[in-house]
Amino acid sequence: MAGLLAGMRVVEGSAFVAAPLGGMTLAQLGADVIRFDPVGGGLDYGRWPVTSDGHSLYWAGLNKGKRSIALDLRSEEGRDLAVALITAPGDEAGMFLTNYPEDGWTGYESLRVRRDDLIVSRIVGNPDGTAALDYTVNAAVGYPIITGPEDHPGVVNSVLPTWDLMAGLTAATGILAADRHRARSGEGRNIRIALADVALATLGALGQIGEVQVNDVDRPRYGNYLYGAFGRDFVTADGGRVMVTAITAGQFRRLVEAAGVGDEIAALEGRRGTPLRSDGDLFEAREEIAGILERWFSMTGYAEVVRCFDEHRVLWGPYQTVRRLLESDARAGTANPLFAEVDQPDIGSLLTAGSPLDTGRDRLPPRRAPRLGEHTEEVLAEVLGLAPAEIGRLLDRGVAAGA
Amino acid sequence: MAGLLAGMRVVEGSAFVAAPLGGMTLAQLGADVIRFDPVGGGLDYGRWPVTSDGHSLYWAGLNKGKRSIALDLRSEEGRDLAVALITAPGDEAGMFLTNYPEDGWTGYESLRVRRDDLIVSRIVGNPDGTAALDYTVNAAVGYPIITGPEDHPGVVNSVLPTWDLMAGLTAATGILAADRHRARSGEGRNIRIALADVALATLGALGQIGEVQVNDVDRPRYGNYLYGAFGRDFVTADGGRVMVTAITAGQFRRLVEAAGVGDEIAALEGRRGTPLRSDGDLFEAREEIAGILERWFSMTGYAEVVRCFDEHRVLWGPYQTVRRLLESDARAGTANPLFAEVDQPDIGSLLTAGSPLDTGRDRLPPRRAPRLGEHTEEVLAEVLGLAPAEIGRLLDRGVAAGA
Repeated sequence: MAGLLAGMRVVEGSAFVAAPLGGMTLAQLGADVIRFDPVGGGLDYGRWPVTSDGHSLYWAGLNKGKRSIALDLRSEEGRDLAVALITAPGDEAGMFLTNYPEDGWTGYESLRVRRDDLIVSRIVGNPDGTAALDYTVNAAVGYPIITGPEDHPGVVNSVLPTWDLMAGLTAATGILAADRHRARSGEGRNIRIALADVALATLGALGQIGEVQVNDVDRPRYGNYLYGAFGRDFVTADGGRVMVTAITAGQFRRLVEAAGVGDEIAALEGRRGTPLRSDGDLFEAREEIAGILERWFSMTGYAEVVRCFDEHRVLWGPYQTVRRLLESDARAGTANPLFAEVDQPDIGSLLTAGSPLDTGRDRLPPRRAPRLGEHTEEVLAEVLGLAPAEIGRLLDRGVAAGA
Repeated sequence: MAGLLAGMRVVEGSAFVAAPLGGMTLAQLGADVIRFDPVGGGLDYGRWPVTSDGHSLYWAGLNKGKRSIALDLRSEEGRDLAVALITAPGDEAGMFLTNYPEDGWTGYESLRVRRDDLIVSRIVGNPDGTAALDYTVNAAVGYPIITGPEDHPGVVNSVLPTWDLMAGLTAATGILAADRHRARSGEGRNIRIALADVALATLGALGQIGEVQVNDVDRPRYGNYLYGAFGRDFVTADGGRVMVTAITAGQFRRLVEAAGVGDEIAALEGRRGTPLRSDGDLFEAREEIAGILERWFSMTGYAEVVRCFDEHRVLWGPYQTVRRLLESDARAGTANPLFAEVDQPDIGSLLTAGSPLDTGRDRLPPRRAPRLGEHTEEVLAEVLGLAPAEIGRLLDRGVAAGA
């Protein structure tokens, strides 16, 4: 069992979320992903959340299944080793997934001198190469203005770096697409993914550019209502909180039956003069529908709500903290093949996810992250063919460092 | 110019966001992606936002660059045509990206009878195959409880279906990884991606499982503060609103210089007894830092803020509506090679994005979405080899429909 991508080697020069997630996506499918870092760790090596003695849970989370090599990237010799790794020979090697700078020694033009068919998949901030972060991009594409309570006077930032996450997955796609193309043509590629472009393309994909350009409408805040169909949070009689959705007519019918509010909904349809048939109808009538459901929720305890919803196959979910999720949701535990308890060095036993791609018999068990520099000697020997004495000299002089 | 994935054919049976985005990701890289739908359109065909005469901007946004075939999927004959498409011969075909049910005629076991090396990449709700939506999953993994103002009594839903978006990109990755594996082994694969697993794996990747399991901390709301470093929204003297970030020590130094608050920050460091060096330091001192910056913002107009920030290369972004973005941000227009104005049937001229992967000379220009059934005849002839008379009979009897 070696994973769908067994044999493929990708070198990663990265920090933070996007590029590390891209590399991890490939590693968890079986690629040999070698992340190089400066000795002592890169900019994200101590990133929060950290344990009480300062070990980063974040770094451990985003580097699972990779090999780690630590090099003195301030020295020419250290940089030369990184370049040699990136451009090492082999039909299944010569792939670089990165958010390192486009100019200088990590630039495509300087690297391809060493390997003409190199594949680079690089995440940048803006399409012109200037810097941008998830948070600054998200502000610019409009979401914080339409998030949160309808009467909230300010903006509401996302707690989830969606654009980083999507950019990382997109960079992994770029590696695989370019690998397929190289296998047919022999040609490498210099691929760039701008974080801002990922956000802008998504805005368009969800119809939100056309909403302004064609409909001349700037979407307002709709609070916790799901846009374009029916969905909202409700509080049960005993204070439980649930997200309830109905995207299709069939889902709405089951919701109405579960809550036993068929008469009230029929009366609403009578007042409106038309049945609630399409998702758009449900959205237009969302406040009346929510009012009817609120009365039912205010009289019904959480356990009874769950019973009715499950009986009628309503699409709902509990609102819960991460603690509650881990304590009581079977999906967030080792009953789910996504997870295993893994011993993470310096951190301890950690509920650790593998790839969300269930590839059947190729699915690799969840693996831990390396220690920084854990594979320095192994990689220098295996990939670059250095002799033990030579590796010893590099370590002694601090050009490379082990764990 | 045909795109990196020229030659690959993927059949898509889908609705809503995730699977359509997965297919579009491959189509925009040059794969021939054929989406089949029921005659009259699937569950997402009228999904909001819609134009004044009911055409879905959402459907147009998520199906760009694909071919469309409409079949009567309630009839055995229509379903047989869909199965024939999915399992059509060819080394570069035999790939099915879908969120259709795992049982019945779209199930892997029933399809592989027709093509043993079939690749299926299927998005499901929960890992056990039960239903879940982005909104119900998001409630369960804890984000709405930590989103929004610190004193907000309720939950705050995301306006962005992050899990759908990530699942779609993950499904595209699954197709490419399985295609690579099939080219080497001759074997197909039945791949499943559970929406809930995508969310849970991300929670772990960002260190948030360890935060509870190892640190015994359930993260509270931090309002608009970026977690783990410095970042927040600020209002300028004339009411402009900007997101300002400093993730690294260098970025923080530039921010301090831009705002000219070096003395105040030095005094803060004196009071703390340690310099603000790491991202964790910045997060711990976020309220004091924000207070210092607030005084500067309250005295400084937007134009001057922008001037100072750009001069010092501060990582910031304006908060703006989509309308403002389209009016004034060069990234959201045809000056960005991501975009072109494209004539979208029934909708009109639309600023349309291509792939956010800039693959250089292979990058395809942005393409429109098809009309529903636009390629019905072409696909039946080309892929299934049906004769014109036979296609005519299928259309006459309503087993298939054109645009």
